[in-house]
Amino acid sequence: MAEPAIVLFAHGARDPAWARPFERIKDLLEKKRPGATVELAFLELMEPPLAETVENLARAGHKAITIAPLFMAQGGHLKNDLPKILAALRAEHPATTITLLPAVGDVDSILASIADWLVGATAP
Amino acid sequence: MAEPAIVLFAHGARDPAWARPFERIKDLLEKKRPGATVELAFLELMEPPLAETVENLARAGHKAITIAPLFMAQGGHLKNDLPKILAALRAEHPATTITLLPAVGDVDSILASIADWLVGATAP
Repeated sequence: MAEPAIVLFAHGARDPAWARPFERIKDLLEKKRPGATVELAFLELMEPPLAETVENLARAGHKAITIAPLFMAQGGHLKNDLPKILAALRAEHPATTITLLPAVGDVDSILASIADWLVGATAP
Repeated sequence: MAEPAIVLFAHGARDPAWARPFERIKDLLEKKRPGATVELAFLELMEPPLAETVENLARAGHKAITIAPLFMAQGGHLKNDLPKILAALRAEHPATTITLLPAVGDVDSILASIADWLVGATAP
C-alpha cells in the first residue's frame, strides 16, 4: 500500500464535542489530499489510542506513517509520553517509517494565522 | 485609559518552555497592534492566573478587556471553569466590558491554516 497515512494526534477529553475541531481538520485534509489515509487518535479519555491506530495502519500495509500532534505547545505529554509510545511502535514495526511532526505551536504559519485572527477579532 | 487590553489565556504546564508559542503569539500581536496592551494568563501551573490579570487591567483603568482562550478545543476548562471565573470578574468590575473570544479550534481560518500546513508537511 503506497498511500501515505497521517495520524492527527490530540489530547482527548470527556466531552465528545471536544473532538470537533480535530474532525474538521481531518475533513479539510482529506479534501486537499484525496489519496491520503487520515486518522484521528488520542492520548487519553477518547478512542482510539495512538498506539492502536498506528499498529492498525502498519498491519494494513502502510510503510510511511506521519504523526501530527495537534497540541498548542509541547508539554510533558509530547516530551515524555510520546517518545516512549513511538520507540515501542518503531521497535515493533521496523519496516514502517514513522515520522513525527512538530506541535501546532511550533509552526510559524499557524502562529501567524492565530495572531492575524486576534488582530481582526479585537479591532477597535 | 482608552487602549484595548487583550488577555491570551492558555492552560499552563510545569515546563517553562511550554509557554513559548504563547509568548510568540503575544509578540506577533503587539507588533500588529502597537496601541494594544497584551498579557498572557494561565489556568493552572503557570503565573499569572487569569483572574489576577484581568483585575490588574481593570484597576489600571482598561474599560474593555478581551480574553482569547488559546486552547485547541473547548473542554471542561473552557465550558465549566472559565464561565465561573468570568461571572465573578464581571460582578466585581461592572464598569469594565469583558469579552470572551472563541477557542482557537472554533476559528475557520486557523483550522484551514493547520490543514494547509499538514498538506505541505506530509507531501509525498
